[in-house]
Amino acid sequence: MSWTLTADAIGDLARGAAVLGTGGGGDPYIGSLLARQALAEHGPVTVVGLDEVPDDALVLTVAMMGAPTVMVEKLPSLDEVVAPVHALGTYLGRPVTHVACAEIGGVNSTIPVAAAAALGLPLLDADGMGRAFPELQMVLPTLYDVTASPLAFSDEKGNVGVLQTVDNHWTERIARVACVEMGCSVMISGFPMSGSIAREALVGGSLSHSLAIGSGIAEARRAKTDPVAATVERLGGREFYFGKVVDVERATTTGFARGRARIEAPGDTDALELSFQNEHLIAQSGDVTFATTPDLIIVLDAESGEPITTEGLRYGQRVRVVAAPSDPRWHTPEALAMVGPGYFGYDLPSHRFDGTPERRLVEAGA
Amino acid sequence: MSWTLTADAIGDLARGAAVLGTGGGGDPYIGSLLARQALAEHGPVTVVGLDEVPDDALVLTVAMMGAPTVMVEKLPSLDEVVAPVHALGTYLGRPVTHVACAEIGGVNSTIPVAAAAALGLPLLDADGMGRAFPELQMVLPTLYDVTASPLAFSDEKGNVGVLQTVDNHWTERIARVACVEMGCSVMISGFPMSGSIAREALVGGSLSHSLAIGSGIAEARRAKTDPVAATVERLGGREFYFGKVVDVERATTTGFARGRARIEAPGDTDALELSFQNEHLIAQSGDVTFATTPDLIIVLDAESGEPITTEGLRYGQRVRVVAAPSDPRWHTPEALAMVGPGYFGYDLPSHRFDGTPERRLVEAGA
Repeated sequence: MSWTLTADAIGDLARGAAVLGTGGGGDPYIGSLLARQALAEHGPVTVVGLDEVPDDALVLTVAMMGAPTVMVEKLPSLDEVVAPVHALGTYLGRPVTHVACAEIGGVNSTIPVAAAAALGLPLLDADGMGRAFPELQMVLPTLYDVTASPLAFSDEKGNVGVLQTVDNHWTERIARVACVEMGCSVMISGFPMSGSIAREALVGGSLSHSLAIGSGIAEARRAKTDPVAATVERLGGREFYFGKVVDVERATTTGFARGRARIEAPGDTDALELSFQNEHLIAQSGDVTFATTPDLIIVLDAESGEPITTEGLRYGQRVRVVAAPSDPRWHTPEALAMVGPGYFGYDLPSHRFDGTPERRLVEAGA
Repeated sequence: MSWTLTADAIGDLARGAAVLGTGGGGDPYIGSLLARQALAEHGPVTVVGLDEVPDDALVLTVAMMGAPTVMVEKLPSLDEVVAPVHALGTYLGRPVTHVACAEIGGVNSTIPVAAAAALGLPLLDADGMGRAFPELQMVLPTLYDVTASPLAFSDEKGNVGVLQTVDNHWTERIARVACVEMGCSVMISGFPMSGSIAREALVGGSLSHSLAIGSGIAEARRAKTDPVAATVERLGGREFYFGKVVDVERATTTGFARGRARIEAPGDTDALELSFQNEHLIAQSGDVTFATTPDLIIVLDAESGEPITTEGLRYGQRVRVVAAPSDPRWHTPEALAMVGPGYFGYDLPSHRFDGTPERRLVEAGA
């Protein structure tokens, strides 16, 4: 099913996408600005369901790569957004037919809207993760042997590069150092896919899902019901913590926003500790692990239900913390090797959103 | 005038090029190996004088980029050498007609021979500097507004990238971080030029000159005359120091071999200090500055006259140190801003090979 995305839906889309962004994927306000500008200049975007993409389509993902702490200060221009798509179209020697989101997040679900509008191309109702992850190779298409490269990157100065690498991890490594040198935030386009591969490898319906979550929060506020409860229900998740942000350690290093946040609930002596690298990775309190990557850990404003990104965490915020299931394909052994706690350096088995540990056997790849 | 380069000339070419490499540009033995292999597999290379290049030629430079300390341990394969030329030909959409050296040096004058042989293309009797310099933008073509980009780079794993940047300094910055990430040594090809531009912007005759220097050293040894004196005469330079290497400080940082060497002459209490970043930049003893970049500072084995590269300096070597004039275009104000001592962080005016300071007025750009 295809539908038309107009400027008045961007606020809800960005808000819902920031919920699924699990702390990363960029600030929804920043993301909205650019998408609204592009829609105003170029008209609405047609969003196409995966069931309607022609088999021989040429789909490219579009995303902003870098530390969200920097992204919030460096809104790209429309020229910068489309530059890598143009570079890649030239490199591939055939016309790009569809744009897709690499991940879901406040910026990374709205930048592709801007790109699709400016390029006059349809946007897929889909993305590569069903959430956000910090590194470029961390998309389901990697598990379907889709190569990230050729991948193009561009900055606000007008520099452009195209990479053709031996695997998706090398695309990440080279693009990341280029990104850091170019100012810690660049636009990228890559993962060229046919329509039939996109149908198999992407997470379908994620823009509609984001829009529903975002408008659900707005509706609950209007109806004076609990917006957090509405979100939890829509995600099939659980709320596991309610407290005040009392400490945030954050550094922008090696191209990422890395850090930890401490949230205290009245009466809990241990407090909740969230560890993040752009996205929340681990939620623990004392000996209890509430959830870990790849399931979603989401921090919401206690009253308004507004998602709070990792770079937006501030002392004194009253928040409610939610865990929700990720796409089931993230729980396969290969996927856990790519995005489980072990990859990020934590000696901890992956814990599902309901707090149960992933069987160690599975995480070991057996 | 065009001539044929065969495997038996490679030793002299590499040796002479290492003399002009002024400590950098790579080890001549390593450089010889790859060129000999390519000539054995693909036959001799035609070397074409700048006067014979057609105006509409498409000339690309080919070079190894990275720290010479790493290059000596990572001899590239022929596949790696030609990969960036192929990538760039595809990107530019028209056939490359000639290969040229970006700089003169033990590896960077012989790698282009290997590339020309493997690609079946003629090689220009020319290069971009008439010596070696550590950064990519430091070529005379930069002063003629030739853009380094599109520039392609490749590594031994099979990773390839193409950059299109806003200026040559940005090509250097992005290529350098990619180079460091890819193992501190990559093959590059760039600076696309027409034949008419190449004629104007390159240093003509530098391969013939290298060959003459290299064979002059060999002849002097056979004739039991002084090979260092033969080299000094051919360079129009001067020998200014004779001593023993007593200290070498060297680190491979940010993609370069940086350091200092101390050479002691009997009776000189101050000793000679050479400062280098891949290439020798400054030669000083106490208050006396013997020569600085952009003129050439060359360390030769005291007996054999064999050039010693900065990564080859060892305690106890008995050496003679020579200064020689660079291409006169390196002494223009814009050129001195790009490659003078000030660019490398030394608070010192440029000193010509005869020890006279460049007028400060000139270096200040007036």
